[in-house]
Amino acid sequence: MGGDYGPPETVAGAVAAVAEGRGRVAVLLVGDAEAVQPELERQGGDRLPIKLIPSDGVILDSESPLQALRAKPRASAVVGVGLVKEGIADAFVTMGSTGAAMAASALLLGMMEGLERPALGGPILGYAPTTVFMELGSSIDCRPSQLVDFAALGVAFSRTYLEVTDPRVGILSVGTEEGKGNRQSKEAFPLFQASGLNFVGNLEGHDLGSDKADVVVCDGFVGNILLKTFEGLGEDLARFVTGRLASHLSEADAAAVGQDVYYLLNQIEYNGGGPLFGIKGNVIVGHGRAKADGIARAVGTAARVCETGLAEKMEEELNSLRARTAG
Amino acid sequence: MGGDYGPPETVAGAVAAVAEGRGRVAVLLVGDAEAVQPELERQGGDRLPIKLIPSDGVILDSESPLQALRAKPRASAVVGVGLVKEGIADAFVTMGSTGAAMAASALLLGMMEGLERPALGGPILGYAPTTVFMELGSSIDCRPSQLVDFAALGVAFSRTYLEVTDPRVGILSVGTEEGKGNRQSKEAFPLFQASGLNFVGNLEGHDLGSDKADVVVCDGFVGNILLKTFEGLGEDLARFVTGRLASHLSEADAAAVGQDVYYLLNQIEYNGGGPLFGIKGNVIVGHGRAKADGIARAVGTAARVCETGLAEKMEEELNSLRARTAG
Repeated sequence: MGGDYGPPETVAGAVAAVAEGRGRVAVLLVGDAEAVQPELERQGGDRLPIKLIPSDGVILDSESPLQALRAKPRASAVVGVGLVKEGIADAFVTMGSTGAAMAASALLLGMMEGLERPALGGPILGYAPTTVFMELGSSIDCRPSQLVDFAALGVAFSRTYLEVTDPRVGILSVGTEEGKGNRQSKEAFPLFQASGLNFVGNLEGHDLGSDKADVVVCDGFVGNILLKTFEGLGEDLARFVTGRLASHLSEADAAAVGQDVYYLLNQIEYNGGGPLFGIKGNVIVGHGRAKADGIARAVGTAARVCETGLAEKMEEELNSLRARTAG
Repeated sequence: MGGDYGPPETVAGAVAAVAEGRGRVAVLLVGDAEAVQPELERQGGDRLPIKLIPSDGVILDSESPLQALRAKPRASAVVGVGLVKEGIADAFVTMGSTGAAMAASALLLGMMEGLERPALGGPILGYAPTTVFMELGSSIDCRPSQLVDFAALGVAFSRTYLEVTDPRVGILSVGTEEGKGNRQSKEAFPLFQASGLNFVGNLEGHDLGSDKADVVVCDGFVGNILLKTFEGLGEDLARFVTGRLASHLSEADAAAVGQDVYYLLNQIEYNGGGPLFGIKGNVIVGHGRAKADGIARAVGTAARVCETGLAEKMEEELNSLRARTAG
């Protein structure tokens, strides 16, 4: 039910995901029956491994997630996460409210030990597709120790999902020396040194695409600003480059270069979505404005998250960190 | 003496600046006489309004500015700022250590009332050349009230130097609603509302190029990360775009598009340098790797800073802010 384009695109995404999954993927579509069922039949989805699970209502981006969970216990986000909790679904994929998905996940699936809320992370910079950014906006005003937890989650993602052998971890700061940074990053530095992670020190803004680290850690305030900055730059620069090439190339060729520039800066959209980090289960959140192809890619991401056992690997990494740093 | 390429480029920059200034600009070159004088003669600068002011030594980026000021009282940064203090020069332009320029400026010229250290600000995003970012890395871990001071400095720059009539001010945050942000930005919000500045609320990362505000305010930690991120992206994307166009365009045309992409993201380098904000005098800091053309542009910036009376306008704006918010 979530996402800016509603059931027609979501159903089309499910149909595409099943086709691309080649027998690996079956879809449970969670939504208001009267909105979804006709669309499913119209698109021929009722002859594929796609089943409707009825829900009642949607939690909107504009609502307070926790209040909405109580007021709408049969909303699609709650029913969808519930399917994961009951073992009926391996993963929940949503283009709806991130806050609703996080709240339902924390409540129904539970957080890994020592974590307060789901973390947002993943590769966001298109031309650095194996550089994992942690955290992207769920945790603002972090304690330094939280940054180390995020690093461990990012390391597990890097190793498990991106197949990086010994992920290098850096703190995003304003100078490479240990003494450079804000209070938070300076206090975090010795914690990283003692963490047993493969810590390579501080990074600066111009290092983000330079492959100096596989996991870049910052407070969710900084990470969210960067995430949205890349998103905006991608759109703006794509438009500029397309326009700049108008006198050189055909319209189609110029637009293709612009599209490449857009994806150079927008890895998340390219992947269709990313998993919530730190919850005991698989929940993938995509972009509200995703269309069928983006939704299908998000389902593909979910399949890979399940097949690699990402959530279990994250919990192991976090437990190893706790064991190394205890006492 | 500062800058990565030393006297040959600096002298060439001075020669170019005098030529471009068309009678408006005379240059005092501060440096070790034996290094600068032969270069000046070789380039014919001794027949132009360019004069050598001898100094002794350089403060390097790697040194602690305050200690270096004491150890090298005749270093070029100290002598150069001293010329401004004594009224012999209207402005000091340096491609050397920003820390040295800031420390010498604060010590010799003094800070405007209520400010602790020079602030770094200005337009940094090439395709938003009238959007002023404050602060860019001098002030880390700011108190909320400092963000309001930076806004006033940015407003004076916007109005005086960029000729924006009633500059709009926004706080860079993670959501547009008042309640969104980190502790610092949330506490700053009501101070901005009460400041009498033309406050338009919170901005997000994707708004940076959108002309929603003329002055974007954030902590120097965030600003410095953004500044360096744009710098790195400019280089990386220019390379990608140039390469992507290799099969479409001539080498020169592809490189020209790449160069445009670079400047879309690098306004500071395009301007050659920017003034230190909040000091009682005119000091312009450029990029260490500037060559002659960048140095000449920085001198042009200095001329415009002097002609517009920027420092005086900043002090007036700050005093107005204090008067409006007192009691």
